[in-house]
Amino acid sequence: MKNLETNLNYSAYDIIAKKRDGKTLTDTEIKWFIAGVTNKSITDYQMSALLMAIYIKGFDKAETASLTDAMLFSGSTISFEGVDVIDKHSTGGVGDKASFILAPIAHAAGVKVPMMAGRGLGHTGGTIDKVESIKGFKTSLSLEEFKKAVDKNRMALIGQTGEIAPADKKIYALRDVTATVDSIPLITASIMSKKLAEGANGIVMDIKTGSGAFMKTRQKAKALGKSLRDTATRFDKKMLTMITDMNQPLGEAVGNSLEIIESIEVLKNKGPKDITDISVELAGAMIYLAEITKTHKAGIKKAKEVLKNGKALESFRELIRLQGGDHKVVDDYSRLPLAKNTKEVLATKSGYISSIACQEFGEHVVTLGGGRKKTEDLIDFGVGFIVHKCVGQKVKKGEKLVTIYYNNDQAEIVKNIEEEILTKNIKIKDAKPKVIKPLIYEIDENPLC
Amino acid sequence: MKNLETNLNYSAYDIIAKKRDGKTLTDTEIKWFIAGVTNKSITDYQMSALLMAIYIKGFDKAETASLTDAMLFSGSTISFEGVDVIDKHSTGGVGDKASFILAPIAHAAGVKVPMMAGRGLGHTGGTIDKVESIKGFKTSLSLEEFKKAVDKNRMALIGQTGEIAPADKKIYALRDVTATVDSIPLITASIMSKKLAEGANGIVMDIKTGSGAFMKTRQKAKALGKSLRDTATRFDKKMLTMITDMNQPLGEAVGNSLEIIESIEVLKNKGPKDITDISVELAGAMIYLAEITKTHKAGIKKAKEVLKNGKALESFRELIRLQGGDHKVVDDYSRLPLAKNTKEVLATKSGYISSIACQEFGEHVVTLGGGRKKTEDLIDFGVGFIVHKCVGQKVKKGEKLVTIYYNNDQAEIVKNIEEEILTKNIKIKDAKPKVIKPLIYEIDENPLC
Repeated sequence: MKNLETNLNYSAYDIIAKKRDGKTLTDTEIKWFIAGVTNKSITDYQMSALLMAIYIKGFDKAETASLTDAMLFSGSTISFEGVDVIDKHSTGGVGDKASFILAPIAHAAGVKVPMMAGRGLGHTGGTIDKVESIKGFKTSLSLEEFKKAVDKNRMALIGQTGEIAPADKKIYALRDVTATVDSIPLITASIMSKKLAEGANGIVMDIKTGSGAFMKTRQKAKALGKSLRDTATRFDKKMLTMITDMNQPLGEAVGNSLEIIESIEVLKNKGPKDITDISVELAGAMIYLAEITKTHKAGIKKAKEVLKNGKALESFRELIRLQGGDHKVVDDYSRLPLAKNTKEVLATKSGYISSIACQEFGEHVVTLGGGRKKTEDLIDFGVGFIVHKCVGQKVKKGEKLVTIYYNNDQAEIVKNIEEEILTKNIKIKDAKPKVIKPLIYEIDENPLC
Repeated sequence: MKNLETNLNYSAYDIIAKKRDGKTLTDTEIKWFIAGVTNKSITDYQMSALLMAIYIKGFDKAETASLTDAMLFSGSTISFEGVDVIDKHSTGGVGDKASFILAPIAHAAGVKVPMMAGRGLGHTGGTIDKVESIKGFKTSLSLEEFKKAVDKNRMALIGQTGEIAPADKKIYALRDVTATVDSIPLITASIMSKKLAEGANGIVMDIKTGSGAFMKTRQKAKALGKSLRDTATRFDKKMLTMITDMNQPLGEAVGNSLEIIESIEVLKNKGPKDITDISVELAGAMIYLAEITKTHKAGIKKAKEVLKNGKALESFRELIRLQGGDHKVVDDYSRLPLAKNTKEVLATKSGYISSIACQEFGEHVVTLGGGRKKTEDLIDFGVGFIVHKCVGQKVKKGEKLVTIYYNNDQAEIVKNIEEEILTKNIKIKDAKPKVIKPLIYEIDENPLC
């Protein structure tokens, strides 16, 4: 990238003006600009002007691929041999602990799983935060250590390092404060630059849609899926996208330790149906992309097999052990930090659950200290919620709707949350809802597969 | 503005998002945002994202007025009593020295003239730079001194001070590097915030259009004129806009001292016709807006009168004297700094002048050191050009087209410029051009007049 910037006589002004006027930027223009952002020869205010122009005027397939490429090569990359190196990415939701379930399942079925995950910000929890509920679990590996671990153990989990796509980190921080987050090409390049850097040869994308997701509409989720598949195709990567529902929390647990416990319960074949089903579906897709089975359906069958026979649970135990964590938590949940106090929220009338707020439960976790408002916030692993019901279920007056886990000094906060749950977050109607949204809306593969 | 920012719980993100989506911002949202930019609680990158959103999605009349208001009250303002306090503003061109001619004419005709002018940047020269060719001429008055000078002498000229519309200064610097200069509402707010701060009760706007102007098309110039008149109306100011041609340099002289000499020649009734005509037209408009005459036409008549009888020349001499300048330059041009060497560029064929490049002559002045590339550049008052011909004129092979004024070490540069003039900047054809563009395209007044 250095060469580009010194050899080519581009101007940031002209590139911004070109996109502002709706014209298509060339590959070298995009790469020159991003190189300038990375080495600080282009200012933040010029980047944010370009981001707004991209947001409004759009980026086509080729421009999106060029941006991905530019951000990818702003940092280090690793690569793996073999068709069986598969990662999964979720666009983020509430109660989404699927990674802890599908990665061990895929691993137990023979897939190599290089997992790079993020921390939570705002209403969605982060995989890295959740796993750190487990004492000693080390996620800050270098890229080199990560590669060695995957090559040796066929599985490793790390947080995003500064080595990976630093341009994305910088640009994301700008997008976050300039109202340019919600743009399909910008989201695509941000996700893909990180996923490509980490070297997986196939990626299963879980695109969440609904009230608790970033993509509020199915149409937007579909557009993002297409953009991600198009970009994967240009980089010769296999990709399967799945659009899944995020109109109510996934599983029953929301909060760090509580979600780890629920994940282990699923791996013990005792977890809630929705999170079990979606994890098997996603793990099945990974097994299929790894070419261990010939179809997605056969992958799902294989996933169910290793879940049933306990091999997936053993893979999870091994993952914890390999990364220095207290693997005894698998058999003894009391080894996880959990808040001392619980409050049961009871139904004030009988009927059917007609809706459960999703984003709001994520926000309640943040209110209790279990999530971040700012990047530098510390989080409390022990607080959270068990949501005992799901949409469409019958409920009797006085029956448990939600259990809140909270700390000694939070009685007042819990009182407010309880009131919100009863008046706004969970709605009970006399009649059973006519339509209940499916867990999975659609599944698409890119042409390479 | 302080109160706004502390009392109102707005978010920069939400305001940017609102404009990004093409919605209309409220008066308080705009004022809150600009107050934040001024006190630095809103970052440059957020401002530039908003600027790009405004550039693409537009601002309506009310939003433009709110932005003007916000920028106006980011600094100090002064005001004058009386309908006869009139200023003039030009959107900038090449060879445009009209201010030095029309201000003395209007003053001699009884108008109070508070003139605030800018420095040159890029291909257009600046009034303040040009007048500083005159030894001792002081333009850095405080706003208070300026007001006193106008009240006492009915005329004063200052450069833009940091007291006036600091938000505009900051925003303009951002627009300049983020490709958001060329936006009608942003140009309107920038011009009007400064003009309103300076307290004139009527403004004559000379909107230049053509190859040497910022508004390249007549349509854009018209749109800017309407936007300026709309904004003036909202602030209860009289305004007359004139759309004038800038497809060839105005007058013959381009360069600082040379333009001062030409201005004095016009005031002595010995100047070129085009610059004389346009100065009389604009001064006539000022006289009319000052309600000294009942019509623009009568104002022009009055302007011609004081030009003919030498009173305008005396007003110019007085202006120089009052601001500490060497007023003897009026009778002795050798007191002005002028480059020692001249080079005559001769026609290489006979025919008719079909076009004279405009912006390019401005750029040649910059190349010779008579203009600025960067704000901090020092300028050489002595270099420049006399363009002896204008479009449509007959020319004989070997006849003088241009005289270049240059310094000892610039022979090589002059050689290149000469070649450019002969091959590109001045075109000679066999046939006389069928259409010669008029000097003035149209004149409009706002409804208040």
